Amino acid sequence: MSLIVQKFGGSSVRDAQRIRNVAGIIADTYRAGNQVMVVLSAQGDTTDDLIEKAREINPKASKREMDMLLSTGEQISIALCAMALEGMGLPVVSLAAWQVGIQTTSAYSDARIKKIDPERIQRELDKNKIVLVAGFQGVNRFGDVTTLGRGGSDTSAVALAAAFGADLCQIYTDVDGVYTTDPRVAPGAVKLEEITYDEMLELASQGAQVLHNRSVELAKKYHVNMEVVSSLERKPGTKVKEVVKMEKTNIAGVAKDTSIARIAVVGLDHNPGVAFRVFSLLGKAGINVDAIIQSIGRDTSKDISFTLPRADVEEAVRVLEEQKGALRFDHLTVEDKIAKVSIVGAGMMTTPGVAAKMFEALYDANINIQMINTSEIRVSVLIDEEDAVAAVRAVHDKFFGDDSFS
Amino acid sequence: MSLIVQKFGGSSVRDAQRIRNVAGIIADTYRAGNQVMVVLSAQGDTTDDLIEKAREINPKASKREMDMLLSTGEQISIALCAMALEGMGLPVVSLAAWQVGIQTTSAYSDARIKKIDPERIQRELDKNKIVLVAGFQGVNRFGDVTTLGRGGSDTSAVALAAAFGADLCQIYTDVDGVYTTDPRVAPGAVKLEEITYDEMLELASQGAQVLHNRSVELAKKYHVNMEVVSSLERKPGTKVKEVVKMEKTNIAGVAKDTSIARIAVVGLDHNPGVAFRVFSLLGKAGINVDAIIQSIGRDTSKDISFTLPRADVEEAVRVLEEQKGALRFDHLTVEDKIAKVSIVGAGMMTTPGVAAKMFEALYDANINIQMINTSEIRVSVLIDEEDAVAAVRAVHDKFFGDDSFS
Repeated sequence: MSLIVQKFGGSSVRDAQRIRNVAGIIADTYRAGNQVMVVLSAQGDTTDDLIEKAREINPKASKREMDMLLSTGEQISIALCAMALEGMGLPVVSLAAWQVGIQTTSAYSDARIKKIDPERIQRELDKNKIVLVAGFQGVNRFGDVTTLGRGGSDTSAVALAAAFGADLCQIYTDVDGVYTTDPRVAPGAVKLEEITYDEMLELASQGAQVLHNRSVELAKKYHVNMEVVSSLERKPGTKVKEVVKMEKTNIAGVAKDTSIARIAVVGLDHNPGVAFRVFSLLGKAGINVDAIIQSIGRDTSKDISFTLPRADVEEAVRVLEEQKGALRFDHLTVEDKIAKVSIVGAGMMTTPGVAAKMFEALYDANINIQMINTSEIRVSVLIDEEDAVAAVRAVHDKFFGDDSFS
Repeated sequence: MSLIVQKFGGSSVRDAQRIRNVAGIIADTYRAGNQVMVVLSAQGDTTDDLIEKAREINPKASKREMDMLLSTGEQISIALCAMALEGMGLPVVSLAAWQVGIQTTSAYSDARIKKIDPERIQRELDKNKIVLVAGFQGVNRFGDVTTLGRGGSDTSAVALAAAFGADLCQIYTDVDGVYTTDPRVAPGAVKLEEITYDEMLELASQGAQVLHNRSVELAKKYHVNMEVVSSLERKPGTKVKEVVKMEKTNIAGVAKDTSIARIAVVGLDHNPGVAFRVFSLLGKAGINVDAIIQSIGRDTSKDISFTLPRADVEEAVRVLEEQKGALRFDHLTVEDKIAKVSIVGAGMMTTPGVAAKMFEALYDANINIQMINTSEIRVSVLIDEEDAVAAVRAVHDKFFGDDSFS
């Protein structure tokens, strides 16, 4: 008998019909002889509706009370889904985070799971019950409700799978798996049967929105086998695991991110500690910097360029200009009509020429590369935003197209 | 410094504007130097909306899951109201029943409060915080959410007031107090400054819908001073307490109940145990019988008449007819065009002639009395439903009208 954790997101439980569909998937898994633990998000727009209610009353409400408010959404989902399973004659129990003993840090609205007390869930599993757990929430050391921030329900699911040594943690979504690239951009995109944690992490960081990084990191740390699978079609999804079988290509996918900008700090002194001062300043302002490139400028000065979320540009410029005197730079240049295209693959570490193949594809498509940034299993290029779609198609065709064997 | 418990019902918190109004009342009470504990119901139609969602999925959902679902409504209310108070710069904390330690019996959907663990609330009060508690809910010995059934939030408020020895438990409603009768029926109805627990209980049982009996019984048992007060107008309400100061009249009010019917079981054997058999049968069927009158019939048989909620007539007739052979009666007569009019007053015990005064008023109004039923502080008469309004006016005028001093 296997223990399977299944997580369903907000759109999968958005109305009665969808909830019945989800109950059907759960029922099939249970009737196949598995123990089943299910994590649910709040229904469709429930969370947004609750946020709107709060805003109307107090736009600066404390995070503690926001968590108290928002955590009701998942509780509604698990109760309704339990009723659907009851209607199918199955033994089921819904549990809120405080009943499960999901202990978190005290940071309201962005808590981290510290520990899960297995007692209550184990008792219910021993009674052969399907256990439905409210995702996205926990309880901190003050006995208050916390929520886990973005990707919270995925994280709840992986944490439960880790705590109970589950055989599989299935993340049900609107898509049926992880693709070699966005099928809307490149019609030749292929669904991957398997992908490694590291590849998934790089793909997610580089713009693929299937899984949230936090849950994949947690899965990697505790060796939880994940599967991204569709809640609408009954067919195999993509497995995320430690090691995957060799594919004929060396990369897992091509990602595109058009939500970024580049800032160059031009004419900095060529002294030690300059980079530290720039990025600690940005760090304190809560700005996440991605790729960094430093180059020697004219004479003895140097330039530092970095990419960052487009939404943070204004704040970053403000912070840097404010400290212009202390940092001693000449001027800033901002470029926000850019895109980042990346290839990701665990295989590229051991295969020479993967990066060159990407650059060749871009050259053939007449696309100019502005910046290059690499990790062990990723190569990213910064290009004009208007070239982004053509770049993804060219690179994807090069690695996955009919000609990719040549 | 006084400790005041305030309870606000669903219509008092139905939208942002009403919540701000409630926050204003709470803030005034707190700023006047009191410790304040607040119990809230779910917003307006939230509970009905959730019930509808559940019905759509499974009309026969378990009570356990219904409680899990419905308890979110009060949690939403307390979080939103806390935000409103935060917006006014006041220290506040919202707490669900599991955080407060409201321990109940295990009967889902109709649980009784067994014990309240004062620790968490006391800690918050000691920090000078306004404490908002989700009404209508508790936790049973399995660690599951329960709800308290009808009048549940009033009961939560009185139970908290009792547990903490509060100086006053204010029940805020849409009306501004308890009246001598329904002002829509008799325009001369007067608001009572004070009323005893017993009078309030009799009035509530006899059709007045201001307070639920359960909360009044609990208040009486633990000597909790209650006040029924309007959440829309800032003026004194009606105090409900052990002993009230003498009023010039001997009765507290006139109540009317038109939701009842009368069944007569005609031609029963005149043997011991007949009444027992009839009413234990009805009791097992969950039918609440109110007034009972037994009379000797023709020859050696006897008749038993009783009143009951009109909604239960069909079931009662079915149950009795089914056992017609065993009970050995001749036939049933059902009369559902009747009404019960009652006068209630602790003073009537020691004042001769109160009942006679009521009968005189009805005689003067040419209203025929079908049945009479009395308790120590109540006289009820059964009359034709079409006479009900005239009867209330006549009786109310007799006791409270300009002529009542004569």
